[in-house]
Amino acid sequence: MLYGRDSARVVSHAKAWGCLYGGEISAITEDDILTFLAVTDDHIQSISQQLSPNIPVVHLSGMTDISVLQQYSAGVCWPLQSMHEHHDIDYQMVPWFLEAKNDPMLARIEHVFRNISSSVHRISSEHRVLVHAAAVFANNFSNHLIGKAGQILDKLEISRSVLLPIIDLNVRSIHHHRAEEIQTGPARRGDILTIQKQLEALVEYPELAELYQQLSRSILKDYHA
Amino acid sequence: MLYGRDSARVVSHAKAWGCLYGGEISAITEDDILTFLAVTDDHIQSISQQLSPNIPVVHLSGMTDISVLQQYSAGVCWPLQSMHEHHDIDYQMVPWFLEAKNDPMLARIEHVFRNISSSVHRISSEHRVLVHAAAVFANNFSNHLIGKAGQILDKLEISRSVLLPIIDLNVRSIHHHRAEEIQTGPARRGDILTIQKQLEALVEYPELAELYQQLSRSILKDYHA
Repeated sequence: MLYGRDSARVVSHAKAWGCLYGGEISAITEDDILTFLAVTDDHIQSISQQLSPNIPVVHLSGMTDISVLQQYSAGVCWPLQSMHEHHDIDYQMVPWFLEAKNDPMLARIEHVFRNISSSVHRISSEHRVLVHAAAVFANNFSNHLIGKAGQILDKLEISRSVLLPIIDLNVRSIHHHRAEEIQTGPARRGDILTIQKQLEALVEYPELAELYQQLSRSILKDYHA
Repeated sequence: MLYGRDSARVVSHAKAWGCLYGGEISAITEDDILTFLAVTDDHIQSISQQLSPNIPVVHLSGMTDISVLQQYSAGVCWPLQSMHEHHDIDYQMVPWFLEAKNDPMLARIEHVFRNISSSVHRISSEHRVLVHAAAVFANNFSNHLIGKAGQILDKLEISRSVLLPIIDLNVRSIHHHRAEEIQTGPARRGDILTIQKQLEALVEYPELAELYQQLSRSILKDYHA
């Protein structure tokens, strides 16, 4: 059973995973083979405490330790995917990171997710936080920088679409190469003159100039230290 | 004619643009309709000075002002594309930013590039530096962050490929949405507790922790100031 807030998103996840949806805590009983708690991180512990310790439960949070679940058979199933409404998710491709308090429980959740996804991994709570941080770098932060680039173009009245070919090509390339191998740009070349010119050009964007400086320094350190 | 260092890359560009390749300055004469100087930024000015002011020349640098060319008919043709050997470039998709000292020259280079690409734009030298900076944010910096994410996974002995679905999905989404609309993650949600936990988890990666803090601050400022 998938327990969570009654929303189209939660109900559609339940459907994709082939399980029932329940919107009331009282709906969760010891008869359920497995219950997913699809609730915000700060509600996981209190809901776990309201349930019998014999009910097998799983939470779905990347950031919450397995120890907050008081059940004997408890687990964590974390998808490395940002569940945004604008995203049309291919469940078969979503990597799942699984953890359980005991081997039978781990086998049970692995069985469920191997049916849903071709990318299923075991991980500890401690390492899960680091994988989550890696996803923040690769997805959230890079998207933020793409937005910042878009804001520069907006001001010049140039369509943001001019950035798409270079972004697309780079992403196609990281399917076959390490990002470090295909790194380009002024900092990668150690081209201090260009870095200075771009910083001067960004004088009207002090926040961007600061990010530019910090990220260039990080690249220079990796390739020219 | 395309003048430049004799390399497979330069020669293949000449072929793609439908022009002759020349490896010696003496090969460039007033009979050439248009000469592209495919040389490093710091050589453009000196080569221009060695040529007759009557020879129509163009440089290809994003960062070099048109004024360094001493020819009467001079121009700049800058591709918003990183010309990396690992990249398999679809020339039709590459956006070109063009500038010229006079209208006939601008018309001439526009004619050339409209045959090569479906994305041809006019731009001043001043604005070109800003578009270049935008590309550095959208491509170079985001690729660097993807590499950093990969380094976290390497240390956990988890394949970097687990990041590909989330990156692919995000890039597909920015074809239809502004990056700001699809921004996700702890900082976007204003989830300070998760930010703190991830910073603690990154204690062994002081440089990444610093970048994490700076980028999270930038996102928090945009969405929660």
